[in-house]
Amino acid sequence: MIVLLTDFGLDGPYTGQVQALLHQQAPGVPVVSLFADLAAFDIQGAAYLLPPYTQGFVPGTVFLCVVDPGVGGRRPGVVVRADGRWFVGPNEGLFAILARCVGQIECWQLPDAVHASASFHARDVFAPVAARLARDGKEVGERVSVETLLRPDWPNDLFRVVYIDRYGNAVTGVRASAIPDDAVLKTGDYLLPRARTFSDVGAGVAFWYRNANGLVEIAVNRGSAAHTLGLRLGTGFRK
Amino acid sequence: MIVLLTDFGLDGPYTGQVQALLHQQAPGVPVVSLFADLAAFDIQGAAYLLPPYTQGFVPGTVFLCVVDPGVGGRRPGVVVRADGRWFVGPNEGLFAILARCVGQIECWQLPDAVHASASFHARDVFAPVAARLARDGKEVGERVSVETLLRPDWPNDLFRVVYIDRYGNAVTGVRASAIPDDAVLKTGDYLLPRARTFSDVGAGVAFWYRNANGLVEIAVNRGSAAHTLGLRLGTGFRK
Amino acid sequence: MIVLLTDFGLDGPYTGQVQALLHQQAPGVPVVSLFADLAAFDIQGAAYLLPPYTQGFVPGTVFLCVVDPGVGGRRPGVVVRADGRWFVGPNEGLFAILARCVGQIECWQLPDAVHASASFHARDVFAPVAARLARDGKEVGERVSVETLLRPDWPNDLFRVVYIDRYGNAVTGVRASAIPDDAVLKTGDYLLPRARTFSDVGAGVAFWYRNANGLVEIAVNRGSAAHTLGLRLGTGFRK
Repeated sequence: MIVLLTDFGLDGPYTGQVQALLHQQAPGVPVVSLFADLAAFDIQGAAYLLPPYTQGFVPGTVFLCVVDPGVGGRRPGVVVRADGRWFVGPNEGLFAILARCVGQIECWQLPDAVHASASFHARDVFAPVAARLARDGKEVGERVSVETLLRPDWPNDLFRVVYIDRYGNAVTGVRASAIPDDAVLKTGDYLLPRARTFSDVGAGVAFWYRNANGLVEIAVNRGSAAHTLGLRLGTGFRK
Repeated sequence: MIVLLTDFGLDGPYTGQVQALLHQQAPGVPVVSLFADLAAFDIQGAAYLLPPYTQGFVPGTVFLCVVDPGVGGRRPGVVVRADGRWFVGPNEGLFAILARCVGQIECWQLPDAVHASASFHARDVFAPVAARLARDGKEVGERVSVETLLRPDWPNDLFRVVYIDRYGNAVTGVRASAIPDDAVLKTGDYLLPRARTFSDVGAGVAFWYRNANGLVEIAVNRGSAAHTLGLRLGTGFRK
Repeated sequence: MIVLLTDFGLDGPYTGQVQALLHQQAPGVPVVSLFADLAAFDIQGAAYLLPPYTQGFVPGTVFLCVVDPGVGGRRPGVVVRADGRWFVGPNEGLFAILARCVGQIECWQLPDAVHASASFHARDVFAPVAARLARDGKEVGERVSVETLLRPDWPNDLFRVVYIDRYGNAVTGVRASAIPDDAVLKTGDYLLPRARTFSDVGAGVAFWYRNANGLVEIAVNRGSAAHTLGLRLGTGFRK
């Protein structure tokens, strides 16, 4: 299976162009878009979503990960093998948190793109590599140190909103296991106690909870946390 | 085929997580999202869309239907077999109108979710059941009375807007066969005569018509009925 | 492969209904949505996107192209074979620019829809034809002159915005090969020089570039050209 995590949107045309290429170059391999609405240009935020949302997939799964404001410039492309799963994309920090979280990891740098467009390496460079990984399961590129993926200046948990879903729930870059269950989170003037799930609090009540992928998520039962609490991508909070 | 009707949105990550699981547990079975933008929390509105938009699919089709504000609470999950098609989802009224519309119907209650997350039963409970139904075609759970699906207090036709599409057309919960062809509908200060289709009226003219799935739909030719008439989800009308 | 270019949106229910029908009538054929967010009612704008975004697909690819405000009226449906690829949709100008750009082209008119709904010929007429073309690769309908596709009054390059993507980049109806590389474009009070790609200019700087499909596109590095420059669908510019 090839799984897409991008900031392309689904409606058109970028995800469709990538899917079409994958169907042609890796026939019969299912292609699923996991995120098409990662925040444009926010590589750091995406880096904290990557480990929790890609864990649990079977070995051999290929993740095509593209938040790429530097496309056409000098940032290198990489292939990462982490606990048997493959990741392909531009190396500007996107795989930095993943590299801290997994057991076994290897890394290859892709050659410079020669016949690629200057603005769509997802289609012209990364998707062909993803298709080849899905077909052959053999690494591509020149072996490089995992150090090239790392961002030592980034914390293990990021205390800000990194994603807002269709309901207005705010996903953060903090693992629920990193804070106590009885932590009360503070954002702006609001105090947010923990709850197990939505229906455990009254309608309109704000809370935080361990979401279905293990991250701290801020929510309002039968309402929008983004709207009610004024949360946006990048809004910080503390415990 | 497995068909999704949800309020998850497509962009990420919920539909993608469900699709990935379905591809793994029911390999080779096509997965199609029919609605990913059902109104969040509006179980009743979705219940009136279910029968017209799921009719005509071949026997054996599995519909995964999730509008689930009560997730993680005590509401039971159900499997419904209606005229040879399968439906899986939380039982808080979503299948109430379907149960009135079909010839042959049976119902099973799913066991309590033990190893599921508290907030994503679509992925952890309902999708594995849908995959199994698509593979085996055998019922799952404990047989219960169809009565458990019903909502006797809900009318056969719901005179309000239950869905607004990308063009601003307003789909209602009323079957076109339930009102006369010459009915003039009233919403706010507007009077809406019937037309056969868009191009039968002038640009900018508001009308109602029998939509391609048999429901009363309010539209404006080459314009947005939602914008022009001030329609929102839940806006009522009368004949 | 069947590729969709429509103004339906993906979330629901129109694209899903078409996909379900295609999976049933052309089992095993991959279906990809390339554009689901073409501007509603803007046939001319879509006509300039069609050639650059459908080139490069292998012969035999079937494109289902629907921007169809005249649905249910007298506009005919057509099948077009252009350089070995198939196109199906309503003939109100959508294929006019394609017909000028390709080497070998043939055209067939579809019979009047008898058993179709009055508002959803994509599902009831064009999708079954697309499925049949994907299965059999044989033409459908009555051979007609390619003249029926043409719009002699339309220019070869359209100096207005025809699509705005998720980042706020504005795609135009002008081929980059039709203007000099050193052209400075003017829109409103803004002067836009050319750049090769985003990272070649500073953050917040506006420019035009040859996009990954060969069209002139107006962009702002790490920003939204639509927002920064006040561009909308239809906004004109000059060189």
